[in-house]
Amino acid sequence: MSLSPLIQQLISALRCLPGVGPKSAQRMAFHLLERERDAALLLSDILRTAVTDLGRCEHCSTLSETALCPLCADQSRNQKLLCVVETPMDVLAIEQTGGFNGLYYVLGGHLSPLDGVGPDDLGIDKLVQRLLQEQVDELILATNPTVEGEATAHYIAEQLQDLAIKVSRIAHGVPVGGELEYVDGGTLAHALAGRRAI
Amino acid sequence: MSLSPLIQQLISALRCLPGVGPKSAQRMAFHLLERERDAALLLSDILRTAVTDLGRCEHCSTLSETALCPLCADQSRNQKLLCVVETPMDVLAIEQTGGFNGLYYVLGGHLSPLDGVGPDDLGIDKLVQRLLQEQVDELILATNPTVEGEATAHYIAEQLQDLAIKVSRIAHGVPVGGELEYVDGGTLAHALAGRRAI
Repeated sequence: MSLSPLIQQLISALRCLPGVGPKSAQRMAFHLLERERDAALLLSDILRTAVTDLGRCEHCSTLSETALCPLCADQSRNQKLLCVVETPMDVLAIEQTGGFNGLYYVLGGHLSPLDGVGPDDLGIDKLVQRLLQEQVDELILATNPTVEGEATAHYIAEQLQDLAIKVSRIAHGVPVGGELEYVDGGTLAHALAGRRAI
Repeated sequence: MSLSPLIQQLISALRCLPGVGPKSAQRMAFHLLERERDAALLLSDILRTAVTDLGRCEHCSTLSETALCPLCADQSRNQKLLCVVETPMDVLAIEQTGGFNGLYYVLGGHLSPLDGVGPDDLGIDKLVQRLLQEQVDELILATNPTVEGEATAHYIAEQLQDLAIKVSRIAHGVPVGGELEYVDGGTLAHALAGRRAI
């Protein structure tokens, strides 16, 4: 083979990045080696530090290098509003809307009996404990609008039936800016069923 | 800001990769942290080793961790055929065709007076020295088919006028598998002018 072994190793290591195939990995490897050696060293250092230092926030289970993540530590946020999401990336997505000022609880996935993921793996018991101890007025279930996400949301809602907490689910409907003719039937049916007076 | 500082640093460090914008960098960072921590550590190690250990082959100037790259060290290759390319990635591209069995010489770019890149920066003097010392029958100029690549090829050809070496340029023409109606005028004119008897 014509390539130096080290370049081949770098190309195959870059394949661990999502969406990076053999051609992109090649392009990345040569680009870093030819033009961005300082940036590559920096990336190497930060990758190592991030993987070593980032654990879970002990309050909401999102990724955090401190025991309490910046969101949970922020006293200016509404402590009585709790939003349940599947992943830390969902936290970021909701934060970037700027439309939510409460706290989060990250499940780390969804219920999936076939993969052996049960309520305990998602920390749902810990969530119930938290709701028993803290003064939470409303729990927003913002799991993904997939079959598994819906099942997870329903399961959590069931567990909380006896508590005096308002439990809500994010709205399903047509995406803003979309065109009706391209929206799938299931979504459109949800949008009709969930219509609101204006 | 809602993200832990370390994740933000990782996301911005990933932006050094070509073709990776803010959204892809976010996705990559969370993917590595949530699912591929071992692979991320491996990538960190290999990045550091590659940047530290990879230098230039002293014979052809391609990227190599050894003084002589695997291609130059391979005695089974045709030592009398030399192909001049702009970058190490071009070497890989030609090698992957499987249609060339000679040696390479990597310029590391093209002539570009406006950017202050002259013949010395490309090691063209070193190339001429090599041709004076070694028995080379044919020199193939495989610089890019761009204005700068053409100028570089012509400059090198001029330097070698007095040497008894056959100098050739890779063919310009219509790409294999393309359709004539989508080929640009310049390429089509080249393809017509360079027509060959069948």
